[in-house]
This record gives sequence, structure tokens and C-alpha cells, in this order.
Amino acid sequence: MNLKKEVIALAKNAQLAFRANLGLTADLKNRALKDMGRSLLAKKETILKANRKDILAASASGASPAFIDRLSLDDKRIKEMADSILEVARLPDPLGRTIKSWRNSSGLKINKVRVPIGVIAIIYESRPNVTAECAALCFKSGNSVILRGGSEAMKSNTAIYRILKGVLNKRAIDAALINMVATTDRAAVEILLKLNDYIDLVIPRGGESLIRKVVHSSLIPVIKHYKGICHVYVDDWADLNMAQKICFNAKVQRPGVCNAMESMLVHKDAAARFLPGMAKMFREAGVRMRGCPMTRRIIKGVSLASDRDYRTEYLDLIVSIKVVNSLKEAISHINEYGSHHSDTIVTDNKKHGYEFLKYVDSACVYVNASTRFTDGYQFGLGAEIGISTDKLHARGPMALEELTTYKYEIIGSGQVRK
Amino acid sequence: MNLKKEVIALAKNAQLAFRANLGLTADLKNRALKDMGRSLLAKKETILKANRKDILAASASGASPAFIDRLSLDDKRIKEMADSILEVARLPDPLGRTIKSWRNSSGLKINKVRVPIGVIAIIYESRPNVTAECAALCFKSGNSVILRGGSEAMKSNTAIYRILKGVLNKRAIDAALINMVATTDRAAVEILLKLNDYIDLVIPRGGESLIRKVVHSSLIPVIKHYKGICHVYVDDWADLNMAQKICFNAKVQRPGVCNAMESMLVHKDAAARFLPGMAKMFREAGVRMRGCPMTRRIIKGVSLASDRDYRTEYLDLIVSIKVVNSLKEAISHINEYGSHHSDTIVTDNKKHGYEFLKYVDSACVYVNASTRFTDGYQFGLGAEIGISTDKLHARGPMALEELTTYKYEIIGSGQVRK
Repeated sequence: MNLKKEVIALAKNAQLAFRANLGLTADLKNRALKDMGRSLLAKKETILKANRKDILAASASGASPAFIDRLSLDDKRIKEMADSILEVARLPDPLGRTIKSWRNSSGLKINKVRVPIGVIAIIYESRPNVTAECAALCFKSGNSVILRGGSEAMKSNTAIYRILKGVLNKRAIDAALINMVATTDRAAVEILLKLNDYIDLVIPRGGESLIRKVVHSSLIPVIKHYKGICHVYVDDWADLNMAQKICFNAKVQRPGVCNAMESMLVHKDAAARFLPGMAKMFREAGVRMRGCPMTRRIIKGVSLASDRDYRTEYLDLIVSIKVVNSLKEAISHINEYGSHHSDTIVTDNKKHGYEFLKYVDSACVYVNASTRFTDGYQFGLGAEIGISTDKLHARGPMALEELTTYKYEIIGSGQVRK
Repeated sequence: MNLKKEVIALAKNAQLAFRANLGLTADLKNRALKDMGRSLLAKKETILKANRKDILAASASGASPAFIDRLSLDDKRIKEMADSILEVARLPDPLGRTIKSWRNSSGLKINKVRVPIGVIAIIYESRPNVTAECAALCFKSGNSVILRGGSEAMKSNTAIYRILKGVLNKRAIDAALINMVATTDRAAVEILLKLNDYIDLVIPRGGESLIRKVVHSSLIPVIKHYKGICHVYVDDWADLNMAQKICFNAKVQRPGVCNAMESMLVHKDAAARFLPGMAKMFREAGVRMRGCPMTRRIIKGVSLASDRDYRTEYLDLIVSIKVVNSLKEAISHINEYGSHHSDTIVTDNKKHGYEFLKYVDSACVYVNASTRFTDGYQFGLGAEIGISTDKLHARGPMALEELTTYKYEIIGSGQVRK
């Protein structure tokens, strides 16, 4: 019961802080952000000390090397964390802009203006850098944030969190704009997810199972950054040299991220000319291939792809390959097996490109470019909180603007409804 | 188990239809909508016959007169239904517009374009007109719709639905764009709300308890049109004559709707001058008043307002009144007790107006106008599916544009990520 009361009090407080600070200037926020970046660097020993405790405990409890790696901080990672906050400080302020403005038939002036959302809860895994980055993005966009990271990183997160709060206090900014549920009790998350009267949005940052758990429990709207099962479709009208470069880049340049290609589709009339050279490049880069029967007739030594392969996000040097009979089949396959994240057609046929753009139901649809460009920085939007695979509110790279909403401000001179 | 299979098949089919019809032209959609309007009129006897059966059954089971009224159709209501579809046909098409377009540093052309959302489920009470209106709005905006109305209106809804489908068939448009779960089995809704792989959005249309039930069960994003606890705040700088007209209009012109005023706040320095005249107008119009102790000192015979009163949407000729000490107290009260729908300040002080607009956390915030203007038509947006009290995706009047989302279409010339 005490935990419940505490979590409710924290959320209520975050909401009051949000409302009281709607007038915070961009300038003051940016100064605070710069201080936060500098302060993280100045106090890195405190962070590293806390982090060593987390690492020791995680090692003792048998965590995997990959887990420990994600949990671990060092000078370089703290520098990156600080840099990313300084970068957020330099981004243009997303608030206050008038999106639309018009006068209605009664003479009312209607302004649709960009405002912060309110209270945003971030539920994340044991990656301490998320603490700093999400706090910075939410603060810059005028929201109150409630952070809840993985319990294995609690000491590191708390150290970072205290440094950020310290800056707010020093700048006489309401410290309740940045909050942390600093208990390892997992019940706290369940409580948090029911507080739809105080929290406006939940963003889970982590693997699919974390996201699904949040969706199942939450009464608050959730924006989901699910996996990326991204495709490149090599059309019969493709420049095959370009197609090879794009497929290679999309698969190999950084295989562990959500915008990497997981599945390659090739038109039947291009397959015999395209696949052997592509397979050679893939093999030289250590990419394992799983293909449909037709693929296996063209490239020897490829294992058979199952239906499940086409639904798998490998995040690894593995690719599933399928030869398709038509552009239409490629589009159907992508809509059915993909994750509506990022998909590319390589073609010199404008009509085919147009059709692909129109009928592929994904956040980012490309003609003749690598799927790897789906990223806030690459788009020129700045730092992002993730790539939304949702269709509502935010789709694709979710940057500062997507952390805002709008309201209508209406100015009259005594108008009443007839 | 059969029901589950049926509902899943229906939802899957709706999704396939959505994807296959992304190329449907505005012209063809508008022709079909006009046919739907005309067809409803031409076949009104069929609708009225089905409606009579629904009414008889509802009466026999002891439904209230208000319930029967909402369920009942007649010539006039069918005409209104048809007119509203014809109106939707005349509205500009919300699709295909480029929201933003730029070239990134790699030379990629990035277009952010407006596209339909996908499959939208509408869960509503026993009001047959919702069937036609929601189907028309979703169809016009390029979405597939799954309709699920109250079981007491099933025969009327089915009759309307068949007429709409008939038009699609006649125009050779995929009839799976408009769907109905035509069973009175309430389990169907529970099944529907779990199908987040096929359905992109749920919009419950009805009272608060219906909406809460949907939110609790749904794994699909829900846009909520909760109640309207709307305020008018009469500032110490108000033109009291204007304030009277606005408060009277907001309360009396149509008390049963969500944008009517439920609570009136008056600055302490205006109370003695304002309240007696206002009370007289209210009494003559049959408005019952509930007030704070200060209100009751100024106007005699007013009953005491409880904390609960200030949280109540009366939808009736009742108003709660509170005298406040400051603009700040008015804003806090509105943010705490209101429903973030529509709130007005009456003031001649520009700074007060600005502060109210900035700090009241509602979808529509007014200076010197009646809250009754919160409406798609009044805003000039055309027909609406409701007034969203949510902050994500759609806030305030939810018209055709809010039934769409965006995607990024990106055109390259072989770009790969470095």
C-alpha cells in the first residue's frame, strides 16, 4: 500500500509540475541542458562508482556478457551521454509554433498551437544511458518525465538522475519535471501503468517482450517501437549494381539495429542475374543466407527459409531471401510478413516505384536507398526517442516534435452559438 | 470458438481490403457516398421496418423512454442521416497531401505524406445513425471500418449496413471496406479488442462507462471522447454584460451536449456585481444553481455545491458556481476538476487572456467566446466523429484529417549509409 501511495504521489506531483511550468522559456531549458551535459562529465567518478556496484551485482547473479555490456559505463560512454544532451540543447525548440491559424464563420480566431503532451513515463531496460537521453528529450519538449529503468541498473540510473536534478535545483527550475521511480520492486511498474489520470503517455524502450508486457498492463496510451523486419525488394527493372550496394549496406553496415534489412525479395526475372554476385558479397562478409526453393536453385548451399524466418528480426548477419513473381507479390509479402518499419524497392521504373510507395503500409518506404536511413539524425530531425512502428500520433523516427501535441487557442469578442 | 474465428476472419479481411484499396480515387469515393445518401432515402421503408422490430423488442424488455428515443428512427432522422453522408461527400479529400518535403544531407528526397490509418473499429451504443455517419467518415478517409453497435439496434444497423454495402457492390468497390460484427453476442467485442495485429484504432462512441470498458479491455490504441466538464471563468477584468451572454449561451443553448458549460467560476472582485444578474437570467431559464459558500452569500436560495458537483457533467439545466480569489486559482481549479475539453475566460485584460490560454491544459481554450463552439462544423472542419479528450494523435474535434496518419516516402538514387 505504501508503494502505491508513493507512486501515485510521484505521478501527481509530476503532473502539477508539468502544468505549472508551461511558461518555461526555451533559453532557460537550453541552459539547464548544457549544465546537465557538463555536470555528467564533471561527476563521472560518482557515476562510474555506482555503475561498478551494479555490474558486480549483475555478474554475481550470472548475467550474460551482452547484458553486462549494455549495463556498463566507461569514460567514452559517459562522454557520449553528455554529448547527446548537449546536442539536444542545440536543437530548435519544438514548442509554441502555430501549426494553423484561421478565422471561422463566427469571426473567432482559431490558432492550433504546438504544446507539450504532459507527463511521459519511460519504461526501459538496464541501459543507464537511456536515463540521461530520455530525460533530456522530455525536458526539452516541455514534458514531465517519470523514468523507470531496469532494476539491475538502479544505482547507475540513480546517480545520473541525481546529477540532473542537481542542475534543476541550481537553476531554480522545478525539480519535479524529472522523476524516477527509484525502487527495484517490480510492482511499481504495474501501479504506474494504471495511473491514466496523471500520466499521458508511456514509452517502453527495450525488446519486444518488455513492450508487449507494457501494452497488456497499461491503461495509458503506449507508443510502441517494435522490431524492424525491413525488406529490400529488387525489381526486374532494378539497376543490379545499385541493388547490390543497397542490399549489402542494409544488411551488413550495422546488422544489430532495427532499420537493418532482414529479408531480401528478388523479382524472378532478375534472380538469376542478381543472386550469384550478391551471394558472393554476402559470403565474403560472413552473412548466412536462408532462401526459398527458387533461391536455393540459383545459389548453392543456402539453407531453406521457413515461414518463421520471414517473420524474424535476426539483428545479426543472417538474411532471408525470397524470389517473387511480381511487384504485387513483393508488396503483399512485405505487408504480411514485415513489421511496417522500413522497406525499399530498387527499380528504374517510375511506375513501379510509385506503386511500392503507395501500397507498402510502412512508416518509411524507400525507392533506391538503404533502409538504414530511418533514423532521426539521418532524416535531419535530431535526436530521437525511438522509431515508432505505431500509426497513431507518431510514426517512424520519434523526435522532439513527436513528443508534443497541439491545442486550440480561440480568441473571440463575445461570440455565442446560435 | 466459432465466434472467435469469425471475428478474426472479418478483421483480417478488413485489413486486406484496406491495403488493396489504397489507390481508391477521391472521385469514386465521393460518387459512392452520394449513392449511399440517396439509397438510404430510397430504401427508408426497409430501415423503418427493421427499426420498428428493434423498438418493439426494446420496449418489451422495459427500456427507458430516453433509450427508445435514441433508438428510434423516423423520416426526419433518416433524412438527416442521408444529408450527413452527402455532406461528407462534399468535404475535401484528406488524403495524399504532402505535409512536409525536404532533402536530407545524403540527397534523399523525404516526403511526409498523409495516408489513411488502416482498420478502425467503432464500438457504439444503440443509435442507428452512428452506423451511417461513422461508415461514411471512415470510408471517405480511406480506412476500413468495423462497426459494432448496441445489440438493441442490431436490426436497424444491419438494414443500414446492407444498404451501404449494396452501393459498394454496385460501384464495384471492395465491400470489405465497410464491415459489421452482426451478432448480439457481447463476447464479440472482447475478441475484437484483442486483435491489435489487424485493427489499428478503436473509437468508442457513447457514455463514459462504455469508453472505460473499452479502455480496460483493448490492446488496440483507443481514442477517447470522454465527458465535457467545461468552465467559463469570469475574470475581474471581464465585460460583465459579455460574460452574462457567454455564460447563458454556454449553459442554456443546448445543455445536453459535451461542450456546454457545467461549472462557472467568478473572480471575487466581480462576484457581487455579476452574480445577481446572472442568477436572475439562469432562474428565468429554469437553471438550477449549486454554489460555494461565497456564492450563496451573494445569491440566496442556491444549494451548496459539493466537491463532487465540480466533477460532474450534468448534461442538464444545472450549473455549479465557485467564487475564486485569482486567475491562478481559476486555472488550477479547471485543470484539477475539468475534463480538459473546452474552457473559456471572459476578460478585457490581454495578459490574463494570454495566461489562461497558456496554462489551461484543455483541448480548446477560449478568450471571450462560448464553449459551445467546440465542434467540427463550427471550427470549419466539417463532420466530426467526436470531440477527443485525449492528447495523443487527435485532440478536440476529430474530423476527417484526424482519421488519417502519415508515412514517409523517400526517393533516393542509390544512397547507402556510411
